[in-house]
Amino acid sequence: METKATPAFRKTTETFTPGARTLAQPYFVSTDVFVQEQERIFCTQWLCAGHQSQLAKSGDFFTQEVAGESLIIVRDRRGTIHGFYNVCRHRGTRMCEEQHGHFQAIQCPYHAWTYSLDGQLIGAPDMDTVEGFDKANHSLHAVGLALWEGFIFVNLAKGPTPLESVFAPLAGKFTHWNLPRLRSVKRVDYDVRANWKLIFQNYSECYHCPLVHPTLSKLTPYDAAENDLFEGPFLGGFMPITKGSSLTMSGNACALPVGDIKAEDHHRVFYYSIFPNLLLSLHPDYVMVHQLWPRSSDRTLIRCDWFFHPDAFDRPDFRPDDAIEFWDTTNKQDWRVCELSQQGIASRAYQPGPYSPRESIPAAWDREYLRVLGE
Amino acid sequence: METKATPAFRKTTETFTPGARTLAQPYFVSTDVFVQEQERIFCTQWLCAGHQSQLAKSGDFFTQEVAGESLIIVRDRRGTIHGFYNVCRHRGTRMCEEQHGHFQAIQCPYHAWTYSLDGQLIGAPDMDTVEGFDKANHSLHAVGLALWEGFIFVNLAKGPTPLESVFAPLAGKFTHWNLPRLRSVKRVDYDVRANWKLIFQNYSECYHCPLVHPTLSKLTPYDAAENDLFEGPFLGGFMPITKGSSLTMSGNACALPVGDIKAEDHHRVFYYSIFPNLLLSLHPDYVMVHQLWPRSSDRTLIRCDWFFHPDAFDRPDFRPDDAIEFWDTTNKQDWRVCELSQQGIASRAYQPGPYSPRESIPAAWDREYLRVLGE
Amino acid sequence: METKATPAFRKTTETFTPGARTLAQPYFVSTDVFVQEQERIFCTQWLCAGHQSQLAKSGDFFTQEVAGESLIIVRDRRGTIHGFYNVCRHRGTRMCEEQHGHFQAIQCPYHAWTYSLDGQLIGAPDMDTVEGFDKANHSLHAVGLALWEGFIFVNLAKGPTPLESVFAPLAGKFTHWNLPRLRSVKRVDYDVRANWKLIFQNYSECYHCPLVHPTLSKLTPYDAAENDLFEGPFLGGFMPITKGSSLTMSGNACALPVGDIKAEDHHRVFYYSIFPNLLLSLHPDYVMVHQLWPRSSDRTLIRCDWFFHPDAFDRPDFRPDDAIEFWDTTNKQDWRVCELSQQGIASRAYQPGPYSPRESIPAAWDREYLRVLGE
Repeated sequence: METKATPAFRKTTETFTPGARTLAQPYFVSTDVFVQEQERIFCTQWLCAGHQSQLAKSGDFFTQEVAGESLIIVRDRRGTIHGFYNVCRHRGTRMCEEQHGHFQAIQCPYHAWTYSLDGQLIGAPDMDTVEGFDKANHSLHAVGLALWEGFIFVNLAKGPTPLESVFAPLAGKFTHWNLPRLRSVKRVDYDVRANWKLIFQNYSECYHCPLVHPTLSKLTPYDAAENDLFEGPFLGGFMPITKGSSLTMSGNACALPVGDIKAEDHHRVFYYSIFPNLLLSLHPDYVMVHQLWPRSSDRTLIRCDWFFHPDAFDRPDFRPDDAIEFWDTTNKQDWRVCELSQQGIASRAYQPGPYSPRESIPAAWDREYLRVLGE
Repeated sequence: METKATPAFRKTTETFTPGARTLAQPYFVSTDVFVQEQERIFCTQWLCAGHQSQLAKSGDFFTQEVAGESLIIVRDRRGTIHGFYNVCRHRGTRMCEEQHGHFQAIQCPYHAWTYSLDGQLIGAPDMDTVEGFDKANHSLHAVGLALWEGFIFVNLAKGPTPLESVFAPLAGKFTHWNLPRLRSVKRVDYDVRANWKLIFQNYSECYHCPLVHPTLSKLTPYDAAENDLFEGPFLGGFMPITKGSSLTMSGNACALPVGDIKAEDHHRVFYYSIFPNLLLSLHPDYVMVHQLWPRSSDRTLIRCDWFFHPDAFDRPDFRPDDAIEFWDTTNKQDWRVCELSQQGIASRAYQPGPYSPRESIPAAWDREYLRVLGE
Repeated sequence: METKATPAFRKTTETFTPGARTLAQPYFVSTDVFVQEQERIFCTQWLCAGHQSQLAKSGDFFTQEVAGESLIIVRDRRGTIHGFYNVCRHRGTRMCEEQHGHFQAIQCPYHAWTYSLDGQLIGAPDMDTVEGFDKANHSLHAVGLALWEGFIFVNLAKGPTPLESVFAPLAGKFTHWNLPRLRSVKRVDYDVRANWKLIFQNYSECYHCPLVHPTLSKLTPYDAAENDLFEGPFLGGFMPITKGSSLTMSGNACALPVGDIKAEDHHRVFYYSIFPNLLLSLHPDYVMVHQLWPRSSDRTLIRCDWFFHPDAFDRPDFRPDDAIEFWDTTNKQDWRVCELSQQGIASRAYQPGPYSPRESIPAAWDREYLRVLGE
C-alpha cells in the first residue's frame, strides 16, 4: 500500500489497448442486463450511500433507495450507524417517508409497532397474548454497513466480503484530504436519462472536454491526465490545474484547504472512480462526490455533494457557490452528452466503436464491469 | 336467514386464528396474479357498479369501467336496467364517452349505427343491400345485471350463479337501512397507489385506528368491534359510537335517519365488506358505500358515495358535509397507510407477518380470497 | 400506365366484397403484431419522410424518426440528398438534436468526430496513432433514399426493391398537380391514440362523413366517391365538390391552382393512400399530405402538411388559413373517432364487424396490409 504515497503516474495514452471497443448495445438498453446488474453488482458490492456527517447525533437518520429498496440509515444510542430495510415486520408497511430526520425510536405509522434504534422490536400492541409470538424474532431486517474515510457504505449481500479488505488497496491514499471530517454544503440530485455506465465512461476521460466543457478546458488541459490507478475497481489520477488555483468560476480557491494538501497537489485535481457507484473529485479546497443510482437501463439518479473543511464554513472567505456553480454547469454538460449517447446507442445502427488512446480508463472500467458481472 | 335479525356478535379477538399471517408478496406485486384475479374474480363475481337511483327515468344511463371494460348501464323504456359492452357491432367503436346522461337511443358516433335501449340494432345505414346481413344478429353484447337492495350488480361471466342465491345469506339483513330508496348526495373517486386487497384488509380492522385516525378514535373505541359475519364472502359487524350520535365532524347526526333504525343501533356504525368490490358503512343517518376497482397490482380506483334518505335532502337540518368531511379525511388517512404498505411489501425484505388478535377479519378475508382465486 | 390518364372510375359500392369484415383484435392491440409490422413493413417499404423543398440548399438537413430510428436527411454539396442514421461511429452518440437546420459538416458534439455531408469520416481527433484505424471504415451508416414526385422516401432495408419499380403504376398519374415544385406553408403534428391502420381505414371511406363531418358533408356528398385504384398498395379516387370550388372554410379557392388542373377536376378532390405511410389529398388549389408514423399499437404520430404553388405565396389572394382551418378541424374530427375505435376494439367483446358497401376501400387496404405482413 505504501506505494500509493508516491504513485507511479502514467499518461493516459500509455495504457491504451489497441482494438478496445465500446460495450455492445444490450449492456445499455436491455432490461435483462439491468436486472442482472442489480443482482450481481448492486446487491453484492459495497455502495456509497452517504457520509457520517449526515448523522451527527444518536437518533439522526436518513433514508436511501438502494437497488430498488428503501433503507433507513440511523445512528443508535451508542453511536453506531446501522442500515435497515424500511419494512415493518408486522404487515410490511414502509415506516418512514422522510428523507432525513431524527428518531426517538422507529415506529410504524400503521399499527404502532415500535423498534429501537438498533432494530429490536420493543413495542407491538395486543401481541402479548399471541401464543408463540416472540418480539426477538421480529427485529428489523438489517443490511451490511461499514465506514470508509467517513463515507457510509451499505451492502445488501448476506456475508459480503468485508469492506476493509475490498478497500485495502486504497489504504492511506486519501489521508491528506481529511475526508472523515469534511461536511457537505450542497447536494444536488440529477435525474439523467442515460445508462449508469455511460456516466462512468464520461467521467473517466477528458477526450470530450474541448467540445463539451469550454470553461473547464481553459483551466485544465484535456490531454494532461496522469493516472496512477489504471486497472481494477479503483481507477483514476490527476489533472494539472494550469490556470488559477482551483476549479471554480473565478479560478480562485473558494475555501480553506480541505486538509494537509501537499505542495505539488495544490494545482492538481484528482479524479477517482470507486466501483460501482462512487466518483471522488478531490480539489485542494473541496471534494465533490457523486453517488450513482441506476434506476433502469436508461435512467440514473446522480446525487452530487460538495464537501468542505468544517472550519471553512464560518470564515468570511468561504464562497462555496464558486465551486458549486462551476461543477453544476459542468455536470449538466456531461449529462447531456451521456443522454445523447444513450439515444444513439439504442439505434439498430449502433456497433461498438473504437476507443481512442485517451479513453484507456473507460476501457479499463468496462473490463472490471464485465469481470464483476461474471461475463 | 332469520338468525340475521338477532345476530350473534362476537368480539374480534374471539375469532383469532393463532399463526395467521399476511399474504405472500406476489399477491400484492405480481402482474400475473393481477391478471388471474381479473379473470377468476372480477370476470366471474357479481360486482357493485352503482345504485338504481342513478337511473331515475327510462333512457338514463351511466358508464362504468369493469375489469378493463367500459360498460353502458341503461334503463330501457319498460324500466328494466341493462348492461352492455360499450362497443359498436360495426367497427368496434366505443360509442359513449360520457360518464352519465340520457339516451333516446344508443347511436354510434362514427357511422350512425343505432341501437334501442334494450340493445337491439335498429339502424344501420346502407346495410340493407348487404346479402345475408341481419340486424337481429348484431345486437349489443350484454353483461349479467341484477339488483340487490337497490344496488346495481354486473357480472361478466356467461351463465353466472344467480345473484339471489349468492346473496341469500344476507336476505333481510339490511332492511332497516332502507337501502333501495336512498340517494347519493356526493361521490368522490380516489386513485390509490395500493393493491385492492390492502384496502379490504385496512377496512376490516380498527387495530390501526389509534395512530391513523385520532378523530375517529375519540368517537368509537378501536377495540370495541363486534362482528356477526366472520367467515366467507360477507364479513363485518358493528362498532359502538360512544361519543356523539354519528360519525360526523360535529359528532351529531346530520340528516334524518335513513330508515327504521332500531333503538340499539342508534349508537352503532356497521361495517360490512361484500366480496369482492363493495364496502358498506351503515350509520344511523347515512350510508357510505365504497366500490373498489383494481387498476393494476399496485393501483386501485375507489369510488365512494354518501347515501341519505330522499326526504332528508330538502330539510333545513340536512348537513351532509358533516359526514362527508369526516369520512373524506378518514378515507385519505387510510389510503396513505395502504400506499405505505404497498411500498414496503414490494421490498425483498418483506415476509408475511403475524396478524394480531384484532385482525381476525382481514385473516378471514384472505381465506375467502384464496378460496375464490382457486389456490 | 397510359390508362391512368383516363382512369376508369368505379362507384365505391361496385367493389364491395360481401362478407368482408374488419380485422381481428390483435392487429390493433398486440405489441407482437406491432413489432412484426415494424420489421416486415416499416423496415422494408419505402416511407415518405418529407419533400425536397425542405432542403433548398446544400447543407440543409432535417431529422426524422423512422421505425424508432432517428435519421438525418441532408443535401450534400453536389445537391444529392442522403439519409443517415443519427449515430456517431465512435461511441454511438446521437449527433443531432435539431429538427432541421444547416450543416457545414456533421460533427458529433461529444468528441468532435466529424463527417462530410455525404457521410465520410473526415475528422477523428487523436485517432491517427491508432494502429489499424482507417477513417474509410467509419462512415455514417446510410439508409436507402429516393425521390418520387418531389417527395423524399427512405427505406431501412438492405437492397430494397427500387422505388421506381414500386411506384411504376403511378407514373404520370399526378403530373397535373405539379407536386415536385410545391411548398408546404404549414405543418401540424397530431399525436393520435389509435392504431395507424385505423387512420387508413378512416381516410378510405366517407360512410362516416354525415355524422363526423357536418361541414365537409355540405360541400361533398358522402356517397359520391368514385375510385380508380381499388386494389393493391395505391388506393383511392375522387369526390365531387358540389358546392363551392374547394374544400375551405369559405368554400372558395384560397390560392393559385397548384398546376395545370384539368377543367373536370376543378370541382373534384382526389384522395389516395400510398402504402404504408402516405395520404395524398389533392385539391385544385392545394395538396394536403399526411405522413403516418406508428409509435405503438395504440398510438400514431400524424404529420400533416399543406402544400401550395410557390408562386401563390406572394400574391394578395393567398389565404392558406382557409384550407388549413378546414382540414385541421376535419382531421381532429377523424382522430377522435379513430381513438374511440381503438378503445372499443380493445374490449373483449369486440368481434370483427361487417364492412358496408361504402367501405370497399378499407377492405382492400386490409387485404394489401395482410399480404405485405405475410399472413
